[in-house]
Amino acid sequence: MSEATSPDVAGKTILIHDPSLRDGHHAVRHSLGAEQLRAYALAADAAGVPVVEVGHGNGLGASSLQVGQARLSDDEMLSITREALTNSKLGVFMLPGWGTTKDIERAIAHDVDLVRIGTHCTESSLAERHLGFLREQGVEAHAVLMMSHMTSAERLAEHCARLVDYGATGVGIMDSAGHYLPSDVTERITAMCAAVDVPVMFHGHNNLGMAVANSIAAADAGASILDACARGFGAGAGNTQLEVLVPVLERVGYRTGIDLYRLLDAADIAERELMPAPPTVDSISIVSGLAGVFSGFKTRVLDISAREGVDPRDVFFELGRRQAVAGQEDLIVDVALALRGAGSGDRS
Amino acid sequence: MSEATSPDVAGKTILIHDPSLRDGHHAVRHSLGAEQLRAYALAADAAGVPVVEVGHGNGLGASSLQVGQARLSDDEMLSITREALTNSKLGVFMLPGWGTTKDIERAIAHDVDLVRIGTHCTESSLAERHLGFLREQGVEAHAVLMMSHMTSAERLAEHCARLVDYGATGVGIMDSAGHYLPSDVTERITAMCAAVDVPVMFHGHNNLGMAVANSIAAADAGASILDACARGFGAGAGNTQLEVLVPVLERVGYRTGIDLYRLLDAADIAERELMPAPPTVDSISIVSGLAGVFSGFKTRVLDISAREGVDPRDVFFELGRRQAVAGQEDLIVDVALALRGAGSGDRS
Repeated sequence: MSEATSPDVAGKTILIHDPSLRDGHHAVRHSLGAEQLRAYALAADAAGVPVVEVGHGNGLGASSLQVGQARLSDDEMLSITREALTNSKLGVFMLPGWGTTKDIERAIAHDVDLVRIGTHCTESSLAERHLGFLREQGVEAHAVLMMSHMTSAERLAEHCARLVDYGATGVGIMDSAGHYLPSDVTERITAMCAAVDVPVMFHGHNNLGMAVANSIAAADAGASILDACARGFGAGAGNTQLEVLVPVLERVGYRTGIDLYRLLDAADIAERELMPAPPTVDSISIVSGLAGVFSGFKTRVLDISAREGVDPRDVFFELGRRQAVAGQEDLIVDVALALRGAGSGDRS
Repeated sequence: MSEATSPDVAGKTILIHDPSLRDGHHAVRHSLGAEQLRAYALAADAAGVPVVEVGHGNGLGASSLQVGQARLSDDEMLSITREALTNSKLGVFMLPGWGTTKDIERAIAHDVDLVRIGTHCTESSLAERHLGFLREQGVEAHAVLMMSHMTSAERLAEHCARLVDYGATGVGIMDSAGHYLPSDVTERITAMCAAVDVPVMFHGHNNLGMAVANSIAAADAGASILDACARGFGAGAGNTQLEVLVPVLERVGYRTGIDLYRLLDAADIAERELMPAPPTVDSISIVSGLAGVFSGFKTRVLDISAREGVDPRDVFFELGRRQAVAGQEDLIVDVALALRGAGSGDRS
């Protein structure tokens, strides 16, 4: 059987960025403890995973009553993970608004190697100040555009170019709602690669069972950084499954520098130590992926739909039509009431 | 966002064949009871799933000490499912050797609509007698080639042409080891479609996270029948996830005639009533997919590897190199002993 499916990739290196200890936190209410962080960080480091990202699910400074309090402080998480890593770089994530320059300074004090600044896909300007600060400090700074299916390839490319001007040394997109199919990714990554000279990143979610295929499409279109988590550890349907992605990349001709057996060991540790069970694709995950809605809405949509006697799937599709984004949870009630008025409850 | 990713598919109908109540049996030791069969068959029928396949995981006549005794007899399973289906066709599966003409006669007595005969990918001749018998009886008969990654596109096409000569009114391939990537599927389905004038089928497994992407590739290459199971219910990493595949097919322009909400309801019932938990992709599933080895070997490989002190992953890769197929379980011991001699145990 032919093993090479991607054109012109022989030997090209893909840098794997592993946010299991950050994005996975969404699946366990930010509850990982010191021994859990240490066990996984040691295992990922031993496997040769290039970047291990740690923190509250919403990043530096986000631990709060509103989005959930982490078991450990940012300081504790950074200190434990820094100590565990001998080869892997230590990464952190920050959403301006939740995190501030003070949080970045604290991460730098912990000798962080890479800071990622995330914004909604059309709000790259919110990252300007932090990227500028990181450039001054001489710390590697990447910028990622979230919910990236909500705008066009052309606009994403423009935002990426702007982020590079601000100081980003890597730019990327997250498929936060798990909405993409491979051709969607190809179109966007191609446009982004044409617009910037820095490494381009893709971060997938598995709502439509496409996280691995989308990540391969991203690499084939020129992305050189791919996010993936052990067992897909993450909210809802989960992220791209790390220990699947790596051997598939290698099979089609890319290089990752990661040891497969040790990576599988790390994933086994993650399954055993970090999560009650690996993510699966449930019906609400499929609907939120199809609708292009942030899967973090799930619990509230289910609660409000039950209260108002409407079908939560109708609520998700209507939220998608209204282009709802995180922070607009009030819309859920509006939509449920509107659907109740229109008799959506009759359907289910 | 563009919703059409597949060329020239607008409105083309894909027939979904749902073996949840047959292939899923592998995941629960053939233990489904009457209420479970009835609940899922009713739900799939209500959703408009075209074909519901039922039976022991290894098909008609296979219930035995050697591969596991089913809770219900073939007669019971056929009778319960037949009664539940008002619109969906009733399908059965048979592997010559396990099943005989007597078993087919019994299925016909239960008014089965579609009989599938499966053989190893290079042994299509084993299906000749049964396909001939079904043609005489006027029953729709499909033939499927299993472990199809073990031979070339050209050979598969030749076997398919032969199966049509024998009487098959549909032919297809199973990715029994979950080894394919989309380009592998494209190559094979393209060759098969060029060789026959009957509908071509693809049946995927999710060991490399590619079951949905591979199924879309099959449709794009000309397949018009796709297998998929609720929540991917099946052995190991599971099959293509039905309620993901259907909306993805619809999104890229195919038609399935299936009601999405009722399909999601059926999948929820399947998760709640049929399985302890949905399949996930564990490390051994990944290794068996990469190695191209039947995942049914898993338990024995783990037991023998533990006893002999060798790494089960090495055993899987060596079984792959030796082209092991189901029935050759004796090879596991040979391989484990050879690896022990070579010092494989030192690695883990």
